Amino acid sequence: MDLIEVLNWRYAVKKYNGQKVSDDKLHRILKAIALSASSSGIQPYRVFVINDNRVRQELAKDSFNSQIKEAPHLIAFAAFNLITKEHIADFIRFMAKERGLPESHLEDYKNKLELHLLTRTNEENFIWSSQQAYIALGTGLIAAADAKVDATPMEGFNREKLDELLGLRKKGLKSVLLLALGYRDTEKDFLANQKKVRLPLNELVTEIN
Amino acid sequence: MDLIEVLNWRYAVKKYNGQKVSDDKLHRILKAIALSASSSGIQPYRVFVINDNRVRQELAKDSFNSQIKEAPHLIAFAAFNLITKEHIADFIRFMAKERGLPESHLEDYKNKLELHLLTRTNEENFIWSSQQAYIALGTGLIAAADAKVDATPMEGFNREKLDELLGLRKKGLKSVLLLALGYRDTEKDFLANQKKVRLPLNELVTEIN
Repeated sequence: MDLIEVLNWRYAVKKYNGQKVSDDKLHRILKAIALSASSSGIQPYRVFVINDNRVRQELAKDSFNSQIKEAPHLIAFAAFNLITKEHIADFIRFMAKERGLPESHLEDYKNKLELHLLTRTNEENFIWSSQQAYIALGTGLIAAADAKVDATPMEGFNREKLDELLGLRKKGLKSVLLLALGYRDTEKDFLANQKKVRLPLNELVTEIN
Repeated sequence: MDLIEVLNWRYAVKKYNGQKVSDDKLHRILKAIALSASSSGIQPYRVFVINDNRVRQELAKDSFNSQIKEAPHLIAFAAFNLITKEHIADFIRFMAKERGLPESHLEDYKNKLELHLLTRTNEENFIWSSQQAYIALGTGLIAAADAKVDATPMEGFNREKLDELLGLRKKGLKSVLLLALGYRDTEKDFLANQKKVRLPLNELVTEIN
């Protein structure tokens, strides 16, 4: 792929044509999301592939985003609403196992993570977790476009309702983002043929010399 | 490129070998950042390429991230700390111009943006702006890796100090992220040959059927 072309091809699709995305492509997009960068690699969020139509219908009732019910596929990103000592211990245990190291070798790293994450407020940690989920969303958008799959990232939905519908609270999670996937309807989507609007590079970027 | 390979190749580099990134590649990475997805395409952040060594030395004093002064290149992302009626008006004016539409055609859209963005608190809007910057960072990471350029995303730095050094406050911006660029030192970077640790897909992703 040529990344610049891929990014130019992508836009937030308003109308899908109904065609499903193959399991193979969906798997690739989820795999890319899993490989996405996150602070310390700690992945403080979880991903939900919502195939249950009832959940989608319910969620769509409160949103101006019709893609919630109309897109062939819908994915939700939910971030941990608090970070605990146990999260960090699990992460360190998993890292030690994956890298074939004794856990004691990661003691310093564990202490640093604890000092950093457990001294912040829950609100600060939730914002941070959600920020990591935004990186994952962005990676998913590129992975989709790279596979010529269309997508719509969405912030406009009733988060409390989705948390309830998916039982997220008891998992320590709060929903932050939705990602619809499918194929654009080039006839019915008014945005399909509009020019992508982006600031010129010299307005977005400043060199400090 | 194969995106999965690109994502697997990438890691947060700790030690750089000193080799500079070509202007051409830097430009491509910045171009990808500019094409990054953002809510309504509004790009509520700005990017700073910090070539001034004094700024980097000063900033490095307060951080455990030695890459701030040692990496060949350093980029900062700063998000708007409040969203104003003028931001929205500028955005609409620019969109109308780029798409060759009379501004009146975007009146509804403008009203929706105002209703959405101007009824939130400044704190809420800053969190949202920063989240958009995280997508841009993630896009930058992929663009770098795609060009075989190494990178380090960093949250650990003194934001107030950078805001002051770059005069961001008077521009309505607050720094949120740093991105170092260069080439890994495979001998001296202890992380260079470590296995990438990521949750298995079935732990990260849940299907709701």
